[in-house]
Amino acid sequence: MQALMMNTQLMISSILRHADKNFPDSEIVSVTADNPRHRHTYKDFANRSRQLANALVELGAKFGDRIGTLAWNDYRHLELYYGVSGSGMVCHTINPKLFPEQVNYIINHAEDRFLFVDLLVVPLLEALKDHLPKVEGYIILTDEAHMPKTTLPNVMCYETLLSKQSTSFEWPEFDENTASAMCYTSGTTGNPKGVVYSHRSTVLHALGGSMPDVVAASYKETTLPIVPMFHVNAWGAPYAALMAGSKMVMPGPKMADGESLQNLIETEKVTFSSGVPTIWLGLLDYLEKTGKTIPSMTRVSVGGAACPRTIIERFKHLHNIEVVQGWGMTETSPLGTIFCKKAGMDDLTEEELIDLQCLQGRGVFGIEMRIVDENNQELPWDGVAFGALKVRGPWVASGYYGLSQVPGSEGCPVDELGWFDTGDVATINPQGYLQITDRTKDVIKTGGEWVSSIEIENAAVSHPEVAEAAAIGRYHPKWTERPLLVVVLQADSSVSTEEIIEFLQNKLHKISMPDDVVFVEELPHTATGKLNKLALRKTLEDYQFPTK
Amino acid sequence: MQALMMNTQLMISSILRHADKNFPDSEIVSVTADNPRHRHTYKDFANRSRQLANALVELGAKFGDRIGTLAWNDYRHLELYYGVSGSGMVCHTINPKLFPEQVNYIINHAEDRFLFVDLLVVPLLEALKDHLPKVEGYIILTDEAHMPKTTLPNVMCYETLLSKQSTSFEWPEFDENTASAMCYTSGTTGNPKGVVYSHRSTVLHALGGSMPDVVAASYKETTLPIVPMFHVNAWGAPYAALMAGSKMVMPGPKMADGESLQNLIETEKVTFSSGVPTIWLGLLDYLEKTGKTIPSMTRVSVGGAACPRTIIERFKHLHNIEVVQGWGMTETSPLGTIFCKKAGMDDLTEEELIDLQCLQGRGVFGIEMRIVDENNQELPWDGVAFGALKVRGPWVASGYYGLSQVPGSEGCPVDELGWFDTGDVATINPQGYLQITDRTKDVIKTGGEWVSSIEIENAAVSHPEVAEAAAIGRYHPKWTERPLLVVVLQADSSVSTEEIIEFLQNKLHKISMPDDVVFVEELPHTATGKLNKLALRKTLEDYQFPTK
Ligand SMILES: Nc1ncnc2c1ncn2[C@@H]1O[C@H](COP(=O)(O)OP(=O)(O)OP(=O)(O)O)[C@@H](O)[C@H]1O
Ligand SMILES: Nc1ncnc2c1ncn2[C@@H]1O[C@H](COP(=O)(O)OP(=O)(O)OP(=O)(O)O)[C@@H](O)[C@H]1O
Ligand SMILES: [Mg+2]
Ligand SMILES: [Mg+2]
Repeated sequence: MQALMMNTQLMISSILRHADKNFPDSEIVSVTADNPRHRHTYKDFANRSRQLANALVELGAKFGDRIGTLAWNDYRHLELYYGVSGSGMVCHTINPKLFPEQVNYIINHAEDRFLFVDLLVVPLLEALKDHLPKVEGYIILTDEAHMPKTTLPNVMCYETLLSKQSTSFEWPEFDENTASAMCYTSGTTGNPKGVVYSHRSTVLHALGGSMPDVVAASYKETTLPIVPMFHVNAWGAPYAALMAGSKMVMPGPKMADGESLQNLIETEKVTFSSGVPTIWLGLLDYLEKTGKTIPSMTRVSVGGAACPRTIIERFKHLHNIEVVQGWGMTETSPLGTIFCKKAGMDDLTEEELIDLQCLQGRGVFGIEMRIVDENNQELPWDGVAFGALKVRGPWVASGYYGLSQVPGSEGCPVDELGWFDTGDVATINPQGYLQITDRTKDVIKTGGEWVSSIEIENAAVSHPEVAEAAAIGRYHPKWTERPLLVVVLQADSSVSTEEIIEFLQNKLHKISMPDDVVFVEELPHTATGKLNKLALRKTLEDYQFPTK
Repeated sequence: MQALMMNTQLMISSILRHADKNFPDSEIVSVTADNPRHRHTYKDFANRSRQLANALVELGAKFGDRIGTLAWNDYRHLELYYGVSGSGMVCHTINPKLFPEQVNYIINHAEDRFLFVDLLVVPLLEALKDHLPKVEGYIILTDEAHMPKTTLPNVMCYETLLSKQSTSFEWPEFDENTASAMCYTSGTTGNPKGVVYSHRSTVLHALGGSMPDVVAASYKETTLPIVPMFHVNAWGAPYAALMAGSKMVMPGPKMADGESLQNLIETEKVTFSSGVPTIWLGLLDYLEKTGKTIPSMTRVSVGGAACPRTIIERFKHLHNIEVVQGWGMTETSPLGTIFCKKAGMDDLTEEELIDLQCLQGRGVFGIEMRIVDENNQELPWDGVAFGALKVRGPWVASGYYGLSQVPGSEGCPVDELGWFDTGDVATINPQGYLQITDRTKDVIKTGGEWVSSIEIENAAVSHPEVAEAAAIGRYHPKWTERPLLVVVLQADSSVSTEEIIEFLQNKLHKISMPDDVVFVEELPHTATGKLNKLALRKTLEDYQFPTK
């Protein structure tokens, strides 16, 4: 029997309309390349988004066209989020910090018709322009006064384009499963792959993510999304904040600079912020060095990589800030799990609580998860069994742009049962808290058992003279693979292989103990700063364990 | 361009699965006719819901069948919510306090195949049973020990039925627009009309309603839904609470009894509760009389009728409890608007804040609203213009069961533009706060202008000797209609018409001043306790204003 409810589609434009009608006075503060502190309101923002929609029509952009952005977190990028998606086009956010050949690959793969480009990214595109045959025009995100001299063809000025347009525009309503945005994965385990979000997935993700025990989006918050808008939609903040009427503070290009962040947080009274671990280490170090504080801040959310315990402890003890760790990926919009206490946990000691916060959190409503063994059989939630992590839900990708959409087939990440294979290896404890132990591609398979490379790395970096460490599996005639530890020492250190092995002795199970330690000057990283084990394995291709 | 996201359907069963996996230990405490304080956990509850699903299969209930419930707020009713809807059948909640002929009409109109009946409702159904030809069986919501002697045919015992079943059941996944539940309107303005909810509308309503600035559902809350589960799904609490892992306290049949409520709240440490104004008046009076307190409670939500200022003031001043008024209707699932402060309102005086709380709140994300004049032209949000309130959104009804689904046609509440006509008359202020001023059918049309009957009533009841008042429009040769005030005086009072008119003089605009006052012993009410102006107008059909 069919229900008798309205068939109202979940549209990104409805978030904007809600924000405009209910919170016209809420503020958006941005740092941009052309303005150290731009301020306007949701009302101004809604007007400008409609001007942008009219400008897109004038440019000749059509329903379904991919419109690329290479930009930082600021109000213009936010306008693109709403103006492009709201009009039925696809807002393709591109990470300008990827290697140039990756940026080139992505733009051509998505077939972007227009690129909206931050001032600082102009040189990169000038270098690539001859390899971008499908791009019809470049719109520079600035005003006439700041327009650069450039060799880019068909260049336009964003502010000039907008200024000619009317602020009236009726957002069209269409099928909620229409593509709204596109984002390529970080390329840690291979080439970046294109994820295509829908209006439906985006609105549901914003709803699920706004819940009180998830990110708790509220008019009371002033939110500073440090995680870039080219990185999985800044984890959904641009949608959740507008839905709730939060004041938004957008850090622009100065995302990783402790001084700028502290200043922004202090002067704008930021209460909540989100970012990857390295950002927080930088900020914490800056605060420690200068003795400055950020008293308005109450919570930070951390994800994208495991959050080191020290971040949680330093925020808690030095700044009375609660760290909320989440796990997710480009393919999950990104919200998968997030830390939150549960009923009955009020008696936990501070240490026990921090133990929990070091895990990756519990599943949010909307995401179902399971861990499976090599035969795709479900494993128990006992905190011990570990296997491939699979997820499903309305904001999980069903495939990649241009690759097979057939579950179970080559290129499609979804199995025959409808579960998305995350490529992560995890345990889940009896209370439902997830712990990522490794990536499937990085796990070390020794004598039929799986050893977590991350566990070895964590143990190694707890040595005071180890600056960074990577563990990879290398061929072993008897055990197939055994762990090899690759270490970068602190400057001036002269610790030996034996000392490191000795140090790890009672920290690791016998099976996880590295068979050897190799010292290097530096480790390879991906463009997003993650350890690049693919490259490391290649470098050490010919490595052989010493025969004892 | 189609997005590449999973087509996971929004299913009520996914709420249960989430609750079961993530909050197995969360508690559900119920008062039932056969147990003064039943306790179990989400885990037990999930098992029993699956037993119920198996029992329904055994009974022969099929996908789409309507399964009626006549029950109070307790765990068994909650199991019906999930077990019936989760299996793809329609959980039809029936208000046992309606007039018997209305109950009869509703059961036959919905063609319920089975009825799940609370012990206390057995006598009502015994009286009706011969007029319920489609009902194939009656399941009494109790255990074998408490089974009543009854003349009902095909009687079964709920606990016996469940105990035979396995706790394993795979919830089916199907189109999210499938009917999940059914509820008839209160019948204030005519015959009750059947609203048919979907899995989609229910899940979206729970998400939208759980938001931090809406109802803020959280694991931290202990929630007591006093609003009945036969009344618009207890305003969605059974879904929102399980989504968040809140402890639930279910008051059973003793919903309107101050002593029972105070005791439940105190012993179970309830923090949040929802109900209609009369419930709160009863509780407040009981607390005042006995000097008892409810210190665990921090918020109550009030809706279903305008919340008198005194409720807000007494809760605030005597108990430090925040009142959150919401507006909604059976057709809106029910959440339409709800009170919440906005950024920039921290400086409001307590009086100004209470003024705001007396309004019906702002639109929640998901519901769009507009007020229109008699030509369906949109009116401004200026707090002055008032017109017919129309809404749209994914949890708003598109029609009534058995009536026309064609927008704009007779029987269909949706206009040609896709807006649902609420039958309420309202203003919206510049900050987006709604004020219900009347029902379309009750508004008094005098000399081409609209006068709010509620405004007159509010003014009248502020007279210390007026117990209750109703204002209705009566025929006037010159003005078409003029207001007539009908008053019930406090016992022993002998206030005169002149004194009342004198009292209203500087409280009402001239156009709103009643032309006459009629005193009566009591006013007619609907089964849900609302003023029955339909009946009142009928009683006073022949009334004529005195010629001056
Ligand atoms: N809190 C966390 N703890 C540990 N790992 C995390 C956490 N959050 C995210 N991750 C890791 O980041 C991954 C998602 O990153 P992202 O989507 O940016 O691309 P990538 O997986 O690094 O790149 P590619 O898929 O192209 O190889 C997850 O699969 C997981 O391995
Ligand atoms: N906070 C509120 N303030 C004023 N009125 C309210 C409020 N909340 C609900 N109402 C009134 O209650 C109505 C919804 O009630 P409900 O769905 O129970 O059925 P009904 O309208 O009373 O009955 P019927 O539609 O059968 O005539 C709204 O249309 C509105 O008139
Ligand atoms: Mg990945
Ligand atoms: Mg009604």
